[in-house]
Amino acid sequence: MPVEYQAPLRDLRFVVEELTASEAVGALPGFEEFSPDLSAAVLEEAGKFATGVLSPLNWPGDQHGAQRQPDASVKTAPGFDKAYSAFVEGGWNSLSCNPDFGGQGLPQLLATAVNEMWNASNMSFALCPMLTAGAIHAIEAHGTQAQRDLYLPKMVSGEWTGTMNLTEPQAGSDLAAVATKAWPLNKPGPSGEASYCVHGTKIYITYGEHDLTENIIHLVLARLPDAPAGVKGISLFIVPKFLVNADGSLGARNDLQCVSLEHKLGIHASPTAVMSYGEKEGAVGYLVGEPHRGLEYMFTMMNDARLQVGVQGVSISERAYQQAHWYAHDRVQGRVMGQSEPRPIAYHPDVRRILATMKCRIEAMRALACEAAAELDQAARHPDSAQARLHQARADLLIPVVKAWCTESCVEIASLGIQVHGGMGFIEETGAAQHLRDARITTIYEGTTAIQANDFIGRKLGRDKGAEAMRLLAEVKATSDALRACGHPDAAGLADALAKSVAVLSEALEATLEMSAQNPVGSFFGSVPLLMLTGSVLGGWMMARSALIAQAKTAVEPFYAQKLASAVFYGQSVLLPSLGLVHAVRAGAAGYAQAESFTGQ
Amino acid sequence: MPVEYQAPLRDLRFVVEELTASEAVGALPGFEEFSPDLSAAVLEEAGKFATGVLSPLNWPGDQHGAQRQPDASVKTAPGFDKAYSAFVEGGWNSLSCNPDFGGQGLPQLLATAVNEMWNASNMSFALCPMLTAGAIHAIEAHGTQAQRDLYLPKMVSGEWTGTMNLTEPQAGSDLAAVATKAWPLNKPGPSGEASYCVHGTKIYITYGEHDLTENIIHLVLARLPDAPAGVKGISLFIVPKFLVNADGSLGARNDLQCVSLEHKLGIHASPTAVMSYGEKEGAVGYLVGEPHRGLEYMFTMMNDARLQVGVQGVSISERAYQQAHWYAHDRVQGRVMGQSEPRPIAYHPDVRRILATMKCRIEAMRALACEAAAELDQAARHPDSAQARLHQARADLLIPVVKAWCTESCVEIASLGIQVHGGMGFIEETGAAQHLRDARITTIYEGTTAIQANDFIGRKLGRDKGAEAMRLLAEVKATSDALRACGHPDAAGLADALAKSVAVLSEALEATLEMSAQNPVGSFFGSVPLLMLTGSVLGGWMMARSALIAQAKTAVEPFYAQKLASAVFYGQSVLLPSLGLVHAVRAGAAGYAQAESFTGQ
Repeated sequence: MPVEYQAPLRDLRFVVEELTASEAVGALPGFEEFSPDLSAAVLEEAGKFATGVLSPLNWPGDQHGAQRQPDASVKTAPGFDKAYSAFVEGGWNSLSCNPDFGGQGLPQLLATAVNEMWNASNMSFALCPMLTAGAIHAIEAHGTQAQRDLYLPKMVSGEWTGTMNLTEPQAGSDLAAVATKAWPLNKPGPSGEASYCVHGTKIYITYGEHDLTENIIHLVLARLPDAPAGVKGISLFIVPKFLVNADGSLGARNDLQCVSLEHKLGIHASPTAVMSYGEKEGAVGYLVGEPHRGLEYMFTMMNDARLQVGVQGVSISERAYQQAHWYAHDRVQGRVMGQSEPRPIAYHPDVRRILATMKCRIEAMRALACEAAAELDQAARHPDSAQARLHQARADLLIPVVKAWCTESCVEIASLGIQVHGGMGFIEETGAAQHLRDARITTIYEGTTAIQANDFIGRKLGRDKGAEAMRLLAEVKATSDALRACGHPDAAGLADALAKSVAVLSEALEATLEMSAQNPVGSFFGSVPLLMLTGSVLGGWMMARSALIAQAKTAVEPFYAQKLASAVFYGQSVLLPSLGLVHAVRAGAAGYAQAESFTGQ
Repeated sequence: MPVEYQAPLRDLRFVVEELTASEAVGALPGFEEFSPDLSAAVLEEAGKFATGVLSPLNWPGDQHGAQRQPDASVKTAPGFDKAYSAFVEGGWNSLSCNPDFGGQGLPQLLATAVNEMWNASNMSFALCPMLTAGAIHAIEAHGTQAQRDLYLPKMVSGEWTGTMNLTEPQAGSDLAAVATKAWPLNKPGPSGEASYCVHGTKIYITYGEHDLTENIIHLVLARLPDAPAGVKGISLFIVPKFLVNADGSLGARNDLQCVSLEHKLGIHASPTAVMSYGEKEGAVGYLVGEPHRGLEYMFTMMNDARLQVGVQGVSISERAYQQAHWYAHDRVQGRVMGQSEPRPIAYHPDVRRILATMKCRIEAMRALACEAAAELDQAARHPDSAQARLHQARADLLIPVVKAWCTESCVEIASLGIQVHGGMGFIEETGAAQHLRDARITTIYEGTTAIQANDFIGRKLGRDKGAEAMRLLAEVKATSDALRACGHPDAAGLADALAKSVAVLSEALEATLEMSAQNPVGSFFGSVPLLMLTGSVLGGWMMARSALIAQAKTAVEPFYAQKLASAVFYGQSVLLPSLGLVHAVRAGAAGYAQAESFTGQ
């Protein structure tokens, strides 16, 4: 049976309290209560909940799955309902939500660290509050005050959950093709807004139906009768499972239902629904914001959602590592080189190499995800608007990297976790295989890796011709210089590796910018290798910053010596080997033409 | 639903007829009938069987699985029994077997190409004849003439299947810990040999029980009462499911049974049995060869078995590519850059990059696997014993590379295949996910990647201090020189990439040899990265040799221009990016110490 998850509290505290800009975050208006003490207390309590409540349901949830019933209701896996109630009672749903609606108003930085625990202990469970958070943000940012007052308090508390309905069967990532329709009804909604009749089918709706709460607030993209074609003709609607009366009580059952659940490779306990709206008398929906601006509203939530999927990459990697680490230290097999007594397989050189590779990569990923969260906090609340804009530009640049690099890494790391187990890793009961199955969705949903790469080179590099990227690279170079200057003998190699990486990444970015101007196909052809290279180098930056802190404290606590060793190992065995990706970036338009010539039909 | 497999006949014929030493193989004693015509005919017929009979059972077999019945029998997935009968009737089981026992005596080179098709169309099915082949080789090489005459004709024809029983619950890859016991019985066996009573439990027994044939010939490792401890005290026994009378007819049911089937991540239709021997009156077994030499006998079959698992890596990669290629050209979604009309997603630059990466890697893997097979043929039959020894040394060096590199690549390629499908890739009905689940065992069984790496640097490099490796690298360098000299403008970049690769790999090999002499832990710590680097470079060698043939024939047939493009793409986007692995090789003993310091308990 799988081992239970233990929150990596020491490293999370290091990242939140020492590595990222937590002091600056704590100084932001509205975050006055955020302090190392508070942060430590929240992380510790969240860790207990993750270990004690969510983790034990992860493997049974995978085996049992969520089940659609003949009456179109969905029964979640055993124990999920009680766990969800405890989650809501513990106030965990509202951690970073707006206090105006009952939230606790804590920074994204802390919420991101906590989300790592929810997803590591039980990703299928954690998807439910993650989707609710997205719906909360949409209504908060774009709904009327009356809509906020009506829906948000119960969504913030977690009494109701939320969903995002974008994809349709004929249109995967291409939202221009959305065909769901909405036409005006002749009666006002409970918040006095116009109401609409919604008709269409949506797929891949996470927690589209379940038995955890009395109501589900669906956010649905649809077209009004007068909508222009394409992405600029899509509007956003609130379509509750049960209509909500003006006093907040539940009204009639709306005309929407779960038609089926997908049979998926992983996250079996997270119901992925095909939802049908308006098959009978028509589903009632309420417009959010202005007509035809639905997609734009979705994009405003995208940074958060993509960051949180990147965090899932950290989470599953950490869980896979813990499982592999436990097995490697528990399993005694074979003679270990240079040892006369039997020792666990962790002492076989290649098992040790795999464990170290997993761990240092996870530390780099975690640090980068939290860095992005701290940037989002500062972008949202920095009192100096010029500073806020800089933080926003940094967050915008980092988020596709976090999303794509942490999730692609996660698939590799979960696969390494299986490898540590040998034959046992292929047996489902061991639990290692579930992590690979769960991991495999993270590079796909909330925008595939290619979509992140498009965003990275198209919007993020393109709009300022790489200026923010070069500003970031100058900081990376400064970190390398500082690490070399610190004088610790172990740090020099990492400083050199990072300096070399800056040179290689600069060259790759410049090559991409040049191609973007001359032959965009060539730049997009190398965009995913570029994004992976960027992730690896920025991971190296976070590890070098960690090493800089750690090298001065190795006598204080073994943690710091371990952190320094992990950073040095990352430089040699992860960062330097990844730099060859620059060759794939350079392939360019000639590479695309070659590729088409031997893979075309 | 998944698309049916189509054998890549053109590329297989290129590899067998033009690229590898098929002329030299055809000139070997006993292979006089082997010719391009014969080869083409066999490949075509095998392709028809793979597409028409095996491929349609692959996805249903995955969903249904093999099922153990309450009476301890095992029911294979629907259609497997008929398909197996057709396989046997078609003579496919006996392709490369000894004509003395009814085999067709064709080269391993051709059998390897054919095995690629069986595994690509249905890996779960193909495991059954693969294991039978191993058992045939063991009895042929180490049994008495009477044993051969009794068992081999029906195993060669496929009327009976064979299994290999090595692993025990307490001993994974560590065969020194085998505890199954055998003690002498007072009656002779049907071939006049001594008989024994066998008692113990074996795990991970592929096709340990099934309903495809009337008998199963189990080969079981066990210890005699006077056996020394460790690996030098293990003997090999024939333990048939039904005892075989001296006239070849079936006798009593032996005391062995399938206790359970494993619940695995993939290859669901291949029953992986826990086998119990001698729970009641004792299982009757017959010694093969001399006492205490069982493990040595197993090692003589290891080259073949490991090569064939490497071929599985090629197979699943090819199947995943075909699925992804079909989807990418079928699915129209989103606007493609520079195109006004809707086009399939294959024209999105990153989808094209993924398809090209998959395809060129598969071609390199296929070529290297067939190269190793041709070396095995020449090692086994070359009339000049010095030449035969050279071919054996080459095969010995190549096989851990083929096994480890093709299977590790296969996991990545199957995962890329999912990515091409976007959200559909995560839905089981699409079929792409099965390929990743099936692929994931290949880096584990027949010796994990780490065990291949141990073999590579310990035995294969260690025994001649790298002499054969350096001889091989000189050939790679010569290929690079010839490619540059050919004058084709597209070939120069690949020639340069290959020359650079030779330099990097030489350095990595020398560093490893040096560490092996001074600090073996350091060399083993970098052994898997070294093996992956070697695979990538030797794949580049095969692609460069392919390019050398192809560049002269681009006007003959579009295939050759495509091959040249594929080779050039491999050099830029696969080979050069992989060279950074040398840094992980160099990590050495210092890397091991760092790794232990931050991942130890």
